[in-house]
Formats: sequence, structure tokens, C-alpha cells
Amino acid sequence: LRNLNQDTITQAVIARLAGTPDARLKEVMTNLVQHLHAFARETRLTEAEWQAGIEFLTAVGQHSDADRQEFVLLSDILGLSTLTVTQNHDKPAGLTESTVMGPFYVADAPQLSGGAKLSADRPGQPCLVWGRVGAIDGAAIAGATVEAWHCDGDGLYDIQQGQGEQRHCRGVLQTDAQGRYQIQTIVVPSYPVTADGPVGQLLGAMASQPWRPAHIHFRVSAPGFETLVTHVYREGDPYLDSDAVYGVRESLIVPWVEDTQGRCVIEFDFVLQRSLA
Amino acid sequence: LRNLNQDTITQAVIARLAGTPDARLKEVMTNLVQHLHAFARETRLTEAEWQAGIEFLTAVGQHSDADRQEFVLLSDILGLSTLTVTQNHDKPAGLTESTVMGPFYVADAPQLSGGAKLSADRPGQPCLVWGRVGAIDGAAIAGATVEAWHCDGDGLYDIQQGQGEQRHCRGVLQTDAQGRYQIQTIVVPSYPVTADGPVGQLLGAMASQPWRPAHIHFRVSAPGFETLVTHVYREGDPYLDSDAVYGVRESLIVPWVEDTQGRCVIEFDFVLQRSLA
Repeated sequence: LRNLNQDTITQAVIARLAGTPDARLKEVMTNLVQHLHAFARETRLTEAEWQAGIEFLTAVGQHSDADRQEFVLLSDILGLSTLTVTQNHDKPAGLTESTVMGPFYVADAPQLSGGAKLSADRPGQPCLVWGRVGAIDGAAIAGATVEAWHCDGDGLYDIQQGQGEQRHCRGVLQTDAQGRYQIQTIVVPSYPVTADGPVGQLLGAMASQPWRPAHIHFRVSAPGFETLVTHVYREGDPYLDSDAVYGVRESLIVPWVEDTQGRCVIEFDFVLQRSLA
Repeated sequence: LRNLNQDTITQAVIARLAGTPDARLKEVMTNLVQHLHAFARETRLTEAEWQAGIEFLTAVGQHSDADRQEFVLLSDILGLSTLTVTQNHDKPAGLTESTVMGPFYVADAPQLSGGAKLSADRPGQPCLVWGRVGAIDGAAIAGATVEAWHCDGDGLYDIQQGQGEQRHCRGVLQTDAQGRYQIQTIVVPSYPVTADGPVGQLLGAMASQPWRPAHIHFRVSAPGFETLVTHVYREGDPYLDSDAVYGVRESLIVPWVEDTQGRCVIEFDFVLQRSLA
């Protein structure tokens, strides 16, 4: 274990990993080390580039907090999130497709009671989102938990607007006896992913378009069913074919229809997969 | 760019990277995405594992600050640092070999004037480290900057000991007209790498021995020469063949000799490489 060099270091690290008690951790770390080293060798990574990488990853961690998750955004723009979601949700037709969680989910969103608006005090064109949560056989799922979140009319999520900001454009409700849900909110725009952190800077350096097509996030869960994390996208959005985070699925795009009162209406039914366990 | 899955996402991301203006950034990011995706595919990474990875990397970033660098420690224990150092310093024989920087270098260490001790107020067996900085042809390098840092007798670096702690066991001096340097300090022990952060937890989960053989860090620089980052190791140390960060090189191991006054004496000459530019 002395005088290791670029040709011998990888096997030395893998040999040490052989002692990892948990077989899965051993497998994952062994594969990770192989690819990490191959990356450094094949690119002939310089020390200045290694240093820049260390500083970049540190900044990504430090731009994350209990709410905002800059590492999730990094995973999203590198396509790792879509890869992970799709390889874990290869579902039979008829079930609602999953897509990326994104960096802005929070677990303790406010309960929406009565006619409370998801958008809270945010201004915008009124929007009704409604539909049904059911199983593949058509059975309604009563009491399913529907969590919804989206940006405001300025394209920003509440948690991007600083500490102490009131929660808005996110909430939780339960389906009724017929499996129905109904959300009063505002129409959301397409928006560019956050440019105020290191991942936004990387996107800029890659000259990548940072826009996401307009969408509403949903997390739908019920006992006996796999939790579904997905979006509902706006038909006709100009960014459906260039989503910065590679999250668009055809089956999640629906018309956002303006009714006679000037209100936008979105109808979307969620079909959950029964748990295997 | 809709309905991407585990088989199509990689090419989609690489196609977008084709627009990166900087050719080297394009090359590095393209290779990174290929290996990152291959890792996730080959391990069939689950969403729970992806989430654990996000949380781990976030914690690594948040355990780093202006002084302590937990991402460097992660790179060190995964062998990435040694790989990067060695592939960038394939030097002719006779030049002092480089090794890893480690997580505890600070750029603004105190200047050591007169007979000031590197160890400041830390107790321990007195130690004299001395030698010469020169070129491959034997020419002395006068006025070379020698930065030295090491742990204290408890195996801890100053910057592991909390905010407001005085600097100790680190300092900067210049070689004299004959290229000589001389440092008064204390004998340093072998020590385990920091277990109080996420990387220490990972080492624990891998059941990896966390010890490093006793060593003193040096960074030696002079106009017209490549900056040298290296260690000097103690001959006979029990961890020379199991260094937790894979940094031991035979040529950097020297006897730490006890003289007749009970003082430890370490002699080490640094031979710098002339800059190409």
C-alpha cells in the first residue's frame, strides 16, 4: 500500500472496500469508486480542476438547507434524477407515470381546509385543478393524501423567497369518499431553474437553456399503494421539448382550459400502483 | 426530449452538453455524465439510495467551512486525491514526490519568526525538523517558502478545535541563503481521520481502519519552481501500509531520530522541479 499511482490506486481502494459489512453498501461503493476513478483518469483531471470540483460541490452543499435542495437540482440537470426515477418505476400502462421530485418539496406543507386556496395570498389568474385518485381497476381511493406545490406567478417557490416567508402555493388535502380532490389556486408560468446558486452557474457555463415547462408538482400517497411523485404539465408549453431537468412525459401533459368565467381548469386523474409488500 | 428513460437519458444529456462553449468543460462534463449514469444503472440505484446520497453529499458540504474541508477528506478516502496527485506529478527520479494535500491546509498560517515554535503552546516531546530546499542540480533555493502543518499530541489539527482557537502546529518560513530551513516543534502521533463528520461515518460503515501514519505536511514554493505539496512520514510507523488516505510514498519515509537530549530530529531535503512555463 505504498507508492500507489494512477494505475494501482483503484484496486487498492476496492480491496479495502471488500471488508464492508453491508453487502449492498460494498457493491454501491465499489462501483462508485471504479467510475469515479475512470472519470478522473479518462479526463486526465488536473489538480486545479479537482480543486474547482471540491469547491463546486462544497458550494452546492452550502446552498442547501432544510427546504432548498441544490444537490437535487444538480442531480436533476445532469439527468440522474430522471434515470433513477425511471429505472425504479417501470410501470404497467394505465398507471400514472412518475417524474422527478425537484428541489422544492417540503414535508410539512399546510393542510388545506374548506375552500382555502393553495396559492394563499399570491395574485394570478384563478385556476381549478381537480380529478380523482384511483386504482388500476377503477376503484376510488378515499382518504388518499394529495400534496401539491408549484411556483407563484413570478416563477418562484415560497422557499426561494427567504426565511420567514409565509408558505404559499403548497398544501396537503385528502380525497373524499369518491376519491375526488379539488384545488383552488393560480395559473403557473414556465420558469427558469434557480440561477442564484452554483448549479445555475454551471447551467450558464454549459449555455444550457434553464427553462422548465409550466407544471404543478404532486405527491399522492395512500395505504396499500406505492407513493406517486409526479407533475402535471401544460399542453402547448414552449418548453415541453427542452425541459431543463428532462422530466416531461407525454402522459402527464393535459390541456389547461379557460372556462367562460376566465378561470383555468385542469382535470387530472391519478392512478396508483398497489404496493407489492 | 419527452418520455426519456434509463436507456435514452444519457444521450439526451450529452447532446445538450454539446453546446457548452468551453471545450474542456464540455469534455469533463460529458465524461462525468457517462460515468455517473453508468454507476446508477449498473448498481440499479434505488430512490431511497439516491436520497441517502443526496443527504450524504449535503452533509459533507455543510461540514466544510473556510478551514475544514470534508469534501477533500471524502476524495482522500476514496483514493481520488492520490489518483489526481500522481497522474499530475509523474516526476523524474531525484525530485521530491508529491502526496495529498489533506483537508487541513490553510493559506494564511502565521509567519514563524526568530526561534518561534511551530507547535506554539502545545505540549509534547521537542522535535527539530531541518533540511534544505534545492533544485535537481543541487543548487540551493534561497528564500523558498516552506509551509508546515501537523496535528498536535492529541492527533487533532488546530482548525478541528473550534472557532476562536488559536492557530498552532502550522506556520510559514523562508529558507536562508543556503536554502536551509529549520523548524522547532513537537513529535506528532499517528491519528485516525476525523470521525465527527459524515465521511467518518462512511469510513465506519465501510469498517475501514481510519488511521494515518504519523506525518508532517509541507507545501514548498519558490519562483521558477513547481509548488510541492507533500508529507514527511515516520519510519517504522505501524500504519505505513494501511494509510486511510493512500498517501504513503517510500521516498517520503525517514527516521525520526532521538538525540542525546531526548529531542526528536528529522532531516529532510526537498528537491523542487523547475517550472515549464
